[in-house]
Amino acid sequence: MTTYAAPVRDMQFVLHDVLEISKQDLPGHGDLDRAFTEAVLDAAGKLAAEVLAPLNPVGDRQGCRLENGVVRTPDGFRAGFEQMREGGWTALDCDPEYGGQGMPYVIGLAAGEMFSAANMAFTMYQGLTHGAYSAIHAHGSDDQKATYLPKMVSCEWTGTMNLTEPHAGTDLGLLRTKAEPQEDGSYRITGQKIFISAGDHDMAENVVHLVLAKAPGGGEGTRGISLFIVPKFLVNADGTLGERNAVSVGNIEEKMGIHGNATCVMNYDGAQGWLLGELHKGMRAMFTMMNEARIGVGLQGYSVAEAAYQNAAAYARDRLQGRAVTGDENPSGPADPLIVHPDIRRNLMDQKSFLEGARALAFWGAHLIDRAKLADDRQAHDLVSLLTPVIKGFLTDKGFDSAVQAQQVFGGHGYIEEQGMSQFVRDARITMIYEGANGVQALDLVGRKLAAEGGKPIMAFFEMVKSEIKVQEADELLQARFCEPLKAASKDLQSAAMFFMEQGMKNPNAALAGSYDFMHLFGHVALGLMWLRMAAAARKALGEGTQDATFHETKLATGRYYMARQLPATAMHLARIRSGAEPVMALDAARF
Amino acid sequence: MTTYAAPVRDMQFVLHDVLEISKQDLPGHGDLDRAFTEAVLDAAGKLAAEVLAPLNPVGDRQGCRLENGVVRTPDGFRAGFEQMREGGWTALDCDPEYGGQGMPYVIGLAAGEMFSAANMAFTMYQGLTHGAYSAIHAHGSDDQKATYLPKMVSCEWTGTMNLTEPHAGTDLGLLRTKAEPQEDGSYRITGQKIFISAGDHDMAENVVHLVLAKAPGGGEGTRGISLFIVPKFLVNADGTLGERNAVSVGNIEEKMGIHGNATCVMNYDGAQGWLLGELHKGMRAMFTMMNEARIGVGLQGYSVAEAAYQNAAAYARDRLQGRAVTGDENPSGPADPLIVHPDIRRNLMDQKSFLEGARALAFWGAHLIDRAKLADDRQAHDLVSLLTPVIKGFLTDKGFDSAVQAQQVFGGHGYIEEQGMSQFVRDARITMIYEGANGVQALDLVGRKLAAEGGKPIMAFFEMVKSEIKVQEADELLQARFCEPLKAASKDLQSAAMFFMEQGMKNPNAALAGSYDFMHLFGHVALGLMWLRMAAAARKALGEGTQDATFHETKLATGRYYMARQLPATAMHLARIRSGAEPVMALDAARF
Repeated sequence: MTTYAAPVRDMQFVLHDVLEISKQDLPGHGDLDRAFTEAVLDAAGKLAAEVLAPLNPVGDRQGCRLENGVVRTPDGFRAGFEQMREGGWTALDCDPEYGGQGMPYVIGLAAGEMFSAANMAFTMYQGLTHGAYSAIHAHGSDDQKATYLPKMVSCEWTGTMNLTEPHAGTDLGLLRTKAEPQEDGSYRITGQKIFISAGDHDMAENVVHLVLAKAPGGGEGTRGISLFIVPKFLVNADGTLGERNAVSVGNIEEKMGIHGNATCVMNYDGAQGWLLGELHKGMRAMFTMMNEARIGVGLQGYSVAEAAYQNAAAYARDRLQGRAVTGDENPSGPADPLIVHPDIRRNLMDQKSFLEGARALAFWGAHLIDRAKLADDRQAHDLVSLLTPVIKGFLTDKGFDSAVQAQQVFGGHGYIEEQGMSQFVRDARITMIYEGANGVQALDLVGRKLAAEGGKPIMAFFEMVKSEIKVQEADELLQARFCEPLKAASKDLQSAAMFFMEQGMKNPNAALAGSYDFMHLFGHVALGLMWLRMAAAARKALGEGTQDATFHETKLATGRYYMARQLPATAMHLARIRSGAEPVMALDAARF
Repeated sequence: MTTYAAPVRDMQFVLHDVLEISKQDLPGHGDLDRAFTEAVLDAAGKLAAEVLAPLNPVGDRQGCRLENGVVRTPDGFRAGFEQMREGGWTALDCDPEYGGQGMPYVIGLAAGEMFSAANMAFTMYQGLTHGAYSAIHAHGSDDQKATYLPKMVSCEWTGTMNLTEPHAGTDLGLLRTKAEPQEDGSYRITGQKIFISAGDHDMAENVVHLVLAKAPGGGEGTRGISLFIVPKFLVNADGTLGERNAVSVGNIEEKMGIHGNATCVMNYDGAQGWLLGELHKGMRAMFTMMNEARIGVGLQGYSVAEAAYQNAAAYARDRLQGRAVTGDENPSGPADPLIVHPDIRRNLMDQKSFLEGARALAFWGAHLIDRAKLADDRQAHDLVSLLTPVIKGFLTDKGFDSAVQAQQVFGGHGYIEEQGMSQFVRDARITMIYEGANGVQALDLVGRKLAAEGGKPIMAFFEMVKSEIKVQEADELLQARFCEPLKAASKDLQSAAMFFMEQGMKNPNAALAGSYDFMHLFGHVALGLMWLRMAAAARKALGEGTQDATFHETKLATGRYYMARQLPATAMHLARIRSGAEPVMALDAARF
């Protein structure tokens, strides 16, 4: 049986010591002092630890069932969802005009980390709703907003995203779902969508599906795609629910993990839908919320790993097995705890140094989104666009690896389902796949983001790294342990970018063959930068005579580990990248 | 639905072009010409592909059930096991004195790769029996051998290994199972064992448990441990089965994978057992078969990955999604196959170059065991002792990663259980854990094997790498693409070994903190050496005007990929090792 404790102390450090959130000249940020965010995070953490976490193994064991066309969620999910709704947790960073609390996205993300860590499958019902909310908020008519948003903010109605079809995953240009215009301005939607997370369930009155489909006259490929609102129950003019729409659940997929979330085959049989945004501009409407959705998945990746890590650390402290090589540390017991063994520590430090860096990166990404939105900061927008595939791809790959490492601490016990560690691994696995498989993230990074705005965002990132190193290297400890390794890692990243630029035009495959390594290289540099920032903040707190010296010293030691033991991966990724396309593309397809 | 095709062509290459098996001056090896081994491998491959592989998803879905104290295996397992038995596949490398076919271990291993790839959970019933057979063969009295071995060679009776108890996994010194001597020379065994693979089932008449227990007078810790034979049914003097022994299945564990194999809690309630080997020397008896058992698990690790890879490659060729950046490759279709995309190739080449290297390494390890046994070759024995933790730890870690990569090729479809890719990942996961978790393998490598015989085996390995490079670097292509990268990687390994030697005495934690990285560093160098050998063999074949040039050219291209894209990992592992114990051990246990 696993447990979860909300890492509020660490979140407070990131929000206040690193991001200095309440000192930012942004609307509403002045109120976010330490006491306020601590109160919010404590309350969210309590819900996560006490309500959501106990439901996590239940969801895994029971899964969802399709009964007479209706999806039944696992025992306790409905009551848990009600508690989440009543606490206002679904409305945290939503627009007050529609019942939201108007907090910055970074606060919503912090709460989201705890909810996902405690119960990822459960939290997805709300997460998908938030995504659909954002799309309608950005692209809906006043009428659509008035009709749907208040109910979605409160999660009385939930939302879904319908993109994939059996033959069309990454390649949405192949979509076949049709939208036929009706005389009343609505459309009839016909087709089959698959892999629809939270596609149906019994925890809300209505489900608002956002569906990509092809309306006449849009041309071939992705150009012909539009986005439609297709509610499960039609909504009357007075806001009450009317008839059942012609959309049904064909099947619930049996998956490797996230069993508590219903992944549905959705059949649209001439269902009534309404255009969201402009006709034939559905892809653009989808993309405006991609940053947020992808950062949300990156968040899931490390959140589940955080929960796994907590359990591994506890087990390593408790489980007695073997003796320390340097002399017994528990002489009165039959053996020493696992945590005395250097290789167990190596394992735990790999996890811990990744997780804290990942949190800092995700929060920074969320803060950049806030900055872009609230201050109309173009640089912040471009930077977070660049970072988004890194946050999604790197944090989910490493989050999965981290969960696997946590499971490994348990030895054979980790393989037994009852222990709960297997669920973390199985759940984390999907984050590398959905919302754009990580290979697609790498392609987005190298094929699109790197060259965006003439390369300005990546140059700005390098400049940022350089100037932060310059500021911090006056501190001798930071200079040797943090600035120097980051300088070397950043140089590797620049060399890789340079290699792509040189090759790009004449040999596009060379850049694409190195794209995955570039994403990881970038991820390490980004986490290195986070660790420099965190180390500097810890040094500052220690210099100011903090009451909590142990926390800050632990932070420094954890950061030193990342710089010494993880950052050297950049050279390997650069070497792989530099080997170019030839070794990758040498074989005929038939030779595999 | 997954498929499996036996890689007979590649096995033939390793056996004949690389190991030159029939040219070895070893008993029975002269008969192993190409035609003979091809006939054996073809037949094994047919059983694997046609009988075992179709049962793989059945085993995963149904699992094993405990009914009235008896374990029921999944539908079809019994008939499949009968076919394996009837074909003589359980007796391949067993002693002819007890009904075996007397072939070298390397041939048994080759067949084992196919069986494990096709159905790992199923094959474990036979694999565990082989382990128990080896223990009785090495340590049993003539009577014990005559009683048990013929039935175990034929798998009419199967075997198990009982080590773990709830509080004693890696640390066997904590065992509590007791053995009380009886007047008739037998013992009464009392205690509980857990995680007993193939602990019971309905496919054989009897199950022969080998049980570690403490008999009086042996002292504390592992010194007091003896090994006992405890049959499920007692065996009468005439070899017929007698009474049921006091051993029962308490439970079948629900695991992440290998559902088709019954992982049992075994309760011994004064069960009658007989000492195997010397009293209080049970650990030594266990260790004599460790090399073989651990190489067997390394084999499982890459075998499952091989099956996963085959399915991923087929999917990448078939699935149409997106267009090649260099121009449409399937202009008449709606999209190009996945395999045109450089990042999909990078993924597949990572797998392919690992798998073929892993096969060569496992086969070489098996061949060294044959050499040690048949020619009483001390050097071969010491070398395979050194390589064993690398084969187990590296091939299972990388095998799991490889299966995860194969699953990734399928995108969302890979996460759906029906597709079968999830099973490969879930099954492969256990190989990193059992038969000594991989952290324990790393500890064995650095704490024991490295310093064994005064360091002679590792020095011999370095000498071997050096001299093979010297021979091959006359060939310009081999020199640039294979010898140079291997030279650099081997230098990294030597530097790491040197670092450990320097640190070893004064700071044992420094070596242990780097042990896991050392295991991976060693694994890369070992695979690099395999690729140099394979490349040289391919060059030779091409030079001699082989009829199968495509095969050998593909081999060279695959090897080039490994050298260019995988071997650079050695520098990262060396950097991690060199950072020493400080970053790893800095924190108090309470800070995790």
